[in-house]
Amino acid sequence: MNKDFNSVSRHDIVISSRVRLARNFDQYPFPPKMNNKEAEEIVSKVKDTLMNYKNDEIGDLLFLDMDSLGDIDKQMLVEKHLISPDLATSKRRCAAIISKNEKTSVMINEEDHLRIQTIFHGMQIDNAWKLCDKIDNVLDKSIEYACSETYGYLTCCPTNLGTGIRVSVMLHLPALVIAGYIGNILEACSKLNIAVRGMYGEHSEAIGNMFQMSNQITLGQTEEEIISSIKNIAMQVVEQENTLRNQLYKQNTIKFEDKVYRSYGILANARSISAEESLRLISDVRLGMDMGIIKNISIDTLNEIMLSIQPACLQKLLGKPLDPDERDVRRAELVRRKLRQN
Amino acid sequence: MNKDFNSVSRHDIVISSRVRLARNFDQYPFPPKMNNKEAEEIVSKVKDTLMNYKNDEIGDLLFLDMDSLGDIDKQMLVEKHLISPDLATSKRRCAAIISKNEKTSVMINEEDHLRIQTIFHGMQIDNAWKLCDKIDNVLDKSIEYACSETYGYLTCCPTNLGTGIRVSVMLHLPALVIAGYIGNILEACSKLNIAVRGMYGEHSEAIGNMFQMSNQITLGQTEEEIISSIKNIAMQVVEQENTLRNQLYKQNTIKFEDKVYRSYGILANARSISAEESLRLISDVRLGMDMGIIKNISIDTLNEIMLSIQPACLQKLLGKPLDPDERDVRRAELVRRKLRQN
Repeated sequence: MNKDFNSVSRHDIVISSRVRLARNFDQYPFPPKMNNKEAEEIVSKVKDTLMNYKNDEIGDLLFLDMDSLGDIDKQMLVEKHLISPDLATSKRRCAAIISKNEKTSVMINEEDHLRIQTIFHGMQIDNAWKLCDKIDNVLDKSIEYACSETYGYLTCCPTNLGTGIRVSVMLHLPALVIAGYIGNILEACSKLNIAVRGMYGEHSEAIGNMFQMSNQITLGQTEEEIISSIKNIAMQVVEQENTLRNQLYKQNTIKFEDKVYRSYGILANARSISAEESLRLISDVRLGMDMGIIKNISIDTLNEIMLSIQPACLQKLLGKPLDPDERDVRRAELVRRKLRQN
Repeated sequence: MNKDFNSVSRHDIVISSRVRLARNFDQYPFPPKMNNKEAEEIVSKVKDTLMNYKNDEIGDLLFLDMDSLGDIDKQMLVEKHLISPDLATSKRRCAAIISKNEKTSVMINEEDHLRIQTIFHGMQIDNAWKLCDKIDNVLDKSIEYACSETYGYLTCCPTNLGTGIRVSVMLHLPALVIAGYIGNILEACSKLNIAVRGMYGEHSEAIGNMFQMSNQITLGQTEEEIISSIKNIAMQVVEQENTLRNQLYKQNTIKFEDKVYRSYGILANARSISAEESLRLISDVRLGMDMGIIKNISIDTLNEIMLSIQPACLQKLLGKPLDPDERDVRRAELVRRKLRQN
């Protein structure tokens, strides 16, 4: 049951690593104060600069005009963490440039003129930061950023001032939740100025035992210091989760396996299931896979299921809008099919 | 969804039909008043008479001396409805003669000197009665029964006086339970002098939606009248259950199928399960099979599972006494194995 720490931190407990930078144009008012013409100019400038950028790591880029996207498409981008819920519902002239491999997304005219974001699987904060920095440099060459010698990068909301960086990791922490220790972890993180939220950022609940940890301070520290601090704290939480998983499994092997398999049994047989219940059951199955209890499912399949069961992704996949009851039925069908394919 | 009424009543809603006759020897006090010598004589006389009886329908008979059986063996006979809980715990000199095919069981020195019982699958009260009557006649030839011209057969408890017959059917009534109508049925039966109990007779709960209906009156009616009355009432209940099943399924097909399949999923995957939870889930799966939702399990397999998960049957099958936690684990294993064999 003792796994190599690095392999654990990379692929199971740490689901993904994200870095995003907030940047603004020097010569333009912040998005809430912009007029339409200014907003349009910003979209054009970013598009012209970035769409010509070639980088093997991010590959092909797509320019997505928010005005021309339907609600389901926008919601799907939110579910994939490629755009924020705010951008999806914004009345402003706004857009996003995303890479087809979904590692990169640049939001234009969200709260700031630019939100440059990179997402990597597992514990890859350093790689996410390297790529994000690279894209930032490309944009920096042709855009004059709003910057103060005293504060650093200027942002619409003061919580992003300075580096404008937000580093976050998505952690799967079922053992800490089961054992009731998650409250202590959240409290400790809060004292260390680390925000802990649910899967979809602010105001979202931690469904399926997924927690997003990110820095709250952007000012007075270098990007490297912020990254290092998040990494260290995340690693400690991962280690606690890992130790606790082994303890719980050892203490009551049968109860542990029973919970995992019952959840699998329901997922593999239900004829109607909500996204929330699916995520709860997937959490148990993921834990079972991490602990070597369930062997015949690949982690890629599980990740694919976790994404595709979200309401918009599901409707997009099935090619039509569906009411919630229909979605529950089609979701159950999809999960069964994907689990059978293993 | 509309099935032929007879086929429904025979194999799914009606699980089994039982007839038992209470008889006593004329020259001996009733069992509570007997001494050891008298008890021994009765055991010997019944044994001598019945063990030489040949009948193709019941085949080979086994004589079981209660004193020489262990607790698990006795409990297993109770679980199979071959002896009563009272006989299993009796301090009296007592015995049972059962047929290997488990259609027949004669208890000696239970509440009465003789309890002659036949059990048939499905709605087969007439066949059960025919066989029971045949065995009664065989015994009657060599034993002088306690009988009064006014009352008929004399029994230890006045509730059995007269015919000494108890006719019962085991009904699986999930739809009536789900729809909340079972209370009305029980009330109506009570007014008609029909007792409705759980799987193991008096004082037992109706686990897994199994209800045992039997006559309360034994006096003032012929055996045929009693049988006909139980049959008619059971048929009406079966018809109500059948109609309700079709209604519920039609009204909310998905919810119905979802419940059935989730229960199947848990049964087929749990690593630890109690007998009670198993029976509840088996009830859903049985309903799913009856409605043609689940097709890859045979009703024989389900019946086999239902019997073998009982504590004593399970321990007998596994060849050793097990504590309740171990039983739950081995029960889950057994259920999974049997479901996979289909």
